[in-house]
Amino acid sequence: MVPSVIPACDPTIAYGLYHACMAPVSLAVLIVLSLLVKRKSLHRSCWNGAPGLLSPVDFLEVEGHPGLVAAVFGILFSSVCVLVLDTDPLPFVASSSPRTREYWKILALLYYPAFYYPLLACATSRHRAGYFVGCLLSWGHCVVQIWQKVDCPQSPKIYRHYSLLSYGPIILCLIILSFWYPVLLVRSFTQENLAAREVAGSSYYKKYLKAILAKRTCSRSSRQASLLSRAQMYLRSYIYTPQEGFQVPLKLVLSVTTAVIAVYQVALLLLVGFLPPVQIVRAGMTKEITVLLVQFGVVPSKSQGGAPGDMTQELDTVRHYLWSLEVCYVCSLVLSCLLTFSMLMRSLGTHRANLRALYRGAVLDVFCRARTLGPSQQALVCWMSFASFQTAFACLGLLIQQVIFFVCAVGFSFLVVIPLQSGAHMHLFKILENMWPFWLMLVLAVLVQNLLAHFCFLEQPYLQKELTNRRALCIVTYLLFPINVLVGVLAGIWRMVISALYNAVHFCQLDVSLLTRGVEAFDPGYRTYCHYLKIEASQSHPVMKAFCVLLLQLPGPERQAGLKPTDVRTREGAEAEVSSFAGIQLMQPAKGLLKTSKSKQMRARWGLAYTLLHNPSLLACRKAALSDPTANGTQP
Amino acid sequence: MVPSVIPACDPTIAYGLYHACMAPVSLAVLIVLSLLVKRKSLHRSCWNGAPGLLSPVDFLEVEGHPGLVAAVFGILFSSVCVLVLDTDPLPFVASSSPRTREYWKILALLYYPAFYYPLLACATSRHRAGYFVGCLLSWGHCVVQIWQKVDCPQSPKIYRHYSLLSYGPIILCLIILSFWYPVLLVRSFTQENLAAREVAGSSYYKKYLKAILAKRTCSRSSRQASLLSRAQMYLRSYIYTPQEGFQVPLKLVLSVTTAVIAVYQVALLLLVGFLPPVQIVRAGMTKEITVLLVQFGVVPSKSQGGAPGDMTQELDTVRHYLWSLEVCYVCSLVLSCLLTFSMLMRSLGTHRANLRALYRGAVLDVFCRARTLGPSQQALVCWMSFASFQTAFACLGLLIQQVIFFVCAVGFSFLVVIPLQSGAHMHLFKILENMWPFWLMLVLAVLVQNLLAHFCFLEQPYLQKELTNRRALCIVTYLLFPINVLVGVLAGIWRMVISALYNAVHFCQLDVSLLTRGVEAFDPGYRTYCHYLKIEASQSHPVMKAFCVLLLQLPGPERQAGLKPTDVRTREGAEAEVSSFAGIQLMQPAKGLLKTSKSKQMRARWGLAYTLLHNPSLLACRKAALSDPTANGTQP
Repeated sequence: MVPSVIPACDPTIAYGLYHACMAPVSLAVLIVLSLLVKRKSLHRSCWNGAPGLLSPVDFLEVEGHPGLVAAVFGILFSSVCVLVLDTDPLPFVASSSPRTREYWKILALLYYPAFYYPLLACATSRHRAGYFVGCLLSWGHCVVQIWQKVDCPQSPKIYRHYSLLSYGPIILCLIILSFWYPVLLVRSFTQENLAAREVAGSSYYKKYLKAILAKRTCSRSSRQASLLSRAQMYLRSYIYTPQEGFQVPLKLVLSVTTAVIAVYQVALLLLVGFLPPVQIVRAGMTKEITVLLVQFGVVPSKSQGGAPGDMTQELDTVRHYLWSLEVCYVCSLVLSCLLTFSMLMRSLGTHRANLRALYRGAVLDVFCRARTLGPSQQALVCWMSFASFQTAFACLGLLIQQVIFFVCAVGFSFLVVIPLQSGAHMHLFKILENMWPFWLMLVLAVLVQNLLAHFCFLEQPYLQKELTNRRALCIVTYLLFPINVLVGVLAGIWRMVISALYNAVHFCQLDVSLLTRGVEAFDPGYRTYCHYLKIEASQSHPVMKAFCVLLLQLPGPERQAGLKPTDVRTREGAEAEVSSFAGIQLMQPAKGLLKTSKSKQMRARWGLAYTLLHNPSLLACRKAALSDPTANGTQP
Repeated sequence: MVPSVIPACDPTIAYGLYHACMAPVSLAVLIVLSLLVKRKSLHRSCWNGAPGLLSPVDFLEVEGHPGLVAAVFGILFSSVCVLVLDTDPLPFVASSSPRTREYWKILALLYYPAFYYPLLACATSRHRAGYFVGCLLSWGHCVVQIWQKVDCPQSPKIYRHYSLLSYGPIILCLIILSFWYPVLLVRSFTQENLAAREVAGSSYYKKYLKAILAKRTCSRSSRQASLLSRAQMYLRSYIYTPQEGFQVPLKLVLSVTTAVIAVYQVALLLLVGFLPPVQIVRAGMTKEITVLLVQFGVVPSKSQGGAPGDMTQELDTVRHYLWSLEVCYVCSLVLSCLLTFSMLMRSLGTHRANLRALYRGAVLDVFCRARTLGPSQQALVCWMSFASFQTAFACLGLLIQQVIFFVCAVGFSFLVVIPLQSGAHMHLFKILENMWPFWLMLVLAVLVQNLLAHFCFLEQPYLQKELTNRRALCIVTYLLFPINVLVGVLAGIWRMVISALYNAVHFCQLDVSLLTRGVEAFDPGYRTYCHYLKIEASQSHPVMKAFCVLLLQLPGPERQAGLKPTDVRTREGAEAEVSSFAGIQLMQPAKGLLKTSKSKQMRARWGLAYTLLHNPSLLACRKAALSDPTANGTQP
């Protein structure tokens, strides 16, 4: 069981060479794509006319390919995770002193996002050449990474397979990418005409509108459900099932993806940092150390003071103890991971419910007090860091849970299971045995109070129960006061335990405040979540987006009639502008367009009224825009 | 500084003798009082005609003498506190084996309430003889206890003055009692006629009614207050100031009193358990031990490896360290006590606000969901143990705070203050110095995001702010993702710290749930509090009580006309019965009485309507009683 020395291994394609080749290629791809897309007069007004960078991903749209974006974020986050423990953070710079290494690590935090930038930009360019370059890039990354790992599957750092396992998510995500891009390329050939006319995400917005406008049935019947079906519903709330006509925003998908990867990386680190060393200790346990442990009283011994030669049984006991430690560690790690995953799944369901409520305008249901949904500086900063916070909280939550569960598991096994097996170290049972009159007294006191309350102090003369025998009630209350203080101590300990456990288990959930009613906003996680919801609900309301899509999809000639002759903006420009306004501002060009046809105008107005009825949150925007004189006077 | 040996000391009146005399005397007093009051046909219907015990105190009435009751509860609780560490828990039984001692302790938990029972019963008997006996009893207890402490001011247990200090609250409360009873006795002679006619607590209920029915002014002006005055109001919420026309229920007074005594006893135990031993260690510190500490690297030394003779400076350093430990301990203890007291004071204010809201019928303001206020078995058990729980939680809260604050204070002094003073052990500063690029990066990242959000990504074309430059926003969000994860780790640590601190500080408050919105009821403390409020609001609504008082104070002949000839119940019997019903049931005898006079009936009806208007919580009771056919049909 003694580990063999792992030889130093240099892959055929060194890390430095890989980055030195790929970084310029990526930069070139970015420039070429930018020019190529620019020539098609796409995104002309971006950044006030400066040569526009390609957007990596539009977080506020439901369009595009959430799986692809999530895969790139997974690669990025895994690279950063690997980086934290790396001795050579930047691939170009040779291993230097620990002091300068910190600076390189900070630089690397900015380098890696830029390095993987083209992998995203190729997809958002919505250009056939982009998809083609994306194919090449992802294949290149994938092949090099797999080749490196095949060359050097083992590394001496922490654990022989740690490097391989920690690169697992990167390779997995790269494989996903190198299948996704070809599919996109092929689809761009087959669905050529359709894709050109279709506005991004329009199918989803139409589906959402249909689901909203469809008649609702059997929403009331679930309230009368039995206990069993309510328990089923509760359990089902931990499993996220997609709903017809609703798609989770991209940021939430990303945050859950990176949180899951973070949990994997942290769990891996916890596992390989503890288990192999303990296994080595267990394998290398000698009789001499056992004698020491027996003398310290850690291990029970029948032949006390015996020669080290008789210590076979004690050595087995020590090995059994160490093995129990390992089992406890693995069990608690598995439990922590499962709990964290289920909490993440559950919070996805809560996010959906909250967003739907906000789309409906039910602000009070979500925040429990009135709030305006418009963007603000604070809200925007929170929105930007939401996915990162979710990831970080999942890591920390896993660590906290692991510590708590490991301590509990060790306590349980060494105080209950092993004493029951071996018959030694019965401390807990002895204490419990000595304290039985105390426990009996407490149980009796609680029981007596309940029985008295039920049979003596309550009567039901009319509809509701009434107090009776008040004098006896007061006497019992007075006499049992000291015993109730002891019951209170137990209740207090339970209060401490349950609040600590609840907070530890729900630590990774941003939608749950760890503070109580009224001071919830002091919890940085919950505050971030609330602000995130505000931005998400105000900036990507599906009904608003659906209106944009309807406007942009009007037939060509009719649309041209509504636009002024000087307005040479293309559809993409109009989309960008239209998307940046909300409510009635969207309707103003439509009004101009629809003046030609009376019936169309009526239908549009009816649609507006019906939609506003079902989405009262849009109403606020509309009124504000109407009451502002500049909005009506200076429209372009 | 070496402590002299404390000689064993036997007080002139031994504990056993004191109890052997006082217990039979108390029993005799109880029997005599019971017979005496019985002969005056008081409480005839109590316990179904069995010989009635005197009630120690009616917890649901505002009548009587809350100070006196609180004093007796203080004596009782202090005795129990002293008992926990005592070797002779029951005074009659000589010191026995540790095993049987536990049984005696459990018995003593029931013995002490019975032993101090007559001290309460003498006051609730409302009889001149009761007051007289109360005087004698309290004087007896007081003189014996003071005598014992004068005889033996020091004891060898834990600390020489611990016994004296722990008996402090008992002696203080006994002194209060021995002044209170004479005052009651004297007052019973001077206010003879008035006291006989007055129904208990009637003055308070009338005051409450007046305060309710008085016109309210300037309640709105405070909403427009400035920030400074709002801060003042917030600080003032930590100081309980009595309000006109509202008296805190007896149980709350008791719970706060015993909680304060509990905090005193626990703090005393913490102080004498830590400080004297450390002082002894500090005084007995020798140069030999200092050499050991220097060798272990705990204490810095300039003359490393020098002879023990040069260790004067290092010895001073060790003493300084120990002295710092003591200072930290005392500071954290003082801070914990102050925080616990202020939280108790604050919760008293919250209790009042909650009770007033429940009296008004604003159930949603208190519980945040609809609840019926009637008594139930669970609610009754919680009501019985409320004061005990408050006491136990105050103890536990103090312990938790002390641990946390002591660790923080030691960390601060040994990582910041002492290194700054001496220039050695600068670990923390070295770490901070090495990590400054990291901190700078995080600060810069947050700053850059805020500045960008303010100047680049937000514009205010109309009334509310709107997003702009979405592409740049997405690029910045993507590029800063890895750094934001690190910001998120810091935010997560802050989340952990703030939730732990908040829960520790508010642990003693039952009116604050330590769990978040929606699962609050799983917190045993908050659950108890909610049930307590339900019982208190439904059973001792001041307006209902005021009606009872009005009924009982009707002039003699008119009252007799309303009662049937067979009903020979006296005023006290009627009071007991009337108090056990609520709402309209109270009004039914009044209706019969008032039929004689039209104008009186009108006035009563107007009063009823007005009161119900201001106390909608009574309405539910009234409707229930009206809709129940048996309530109308079978009234006596």
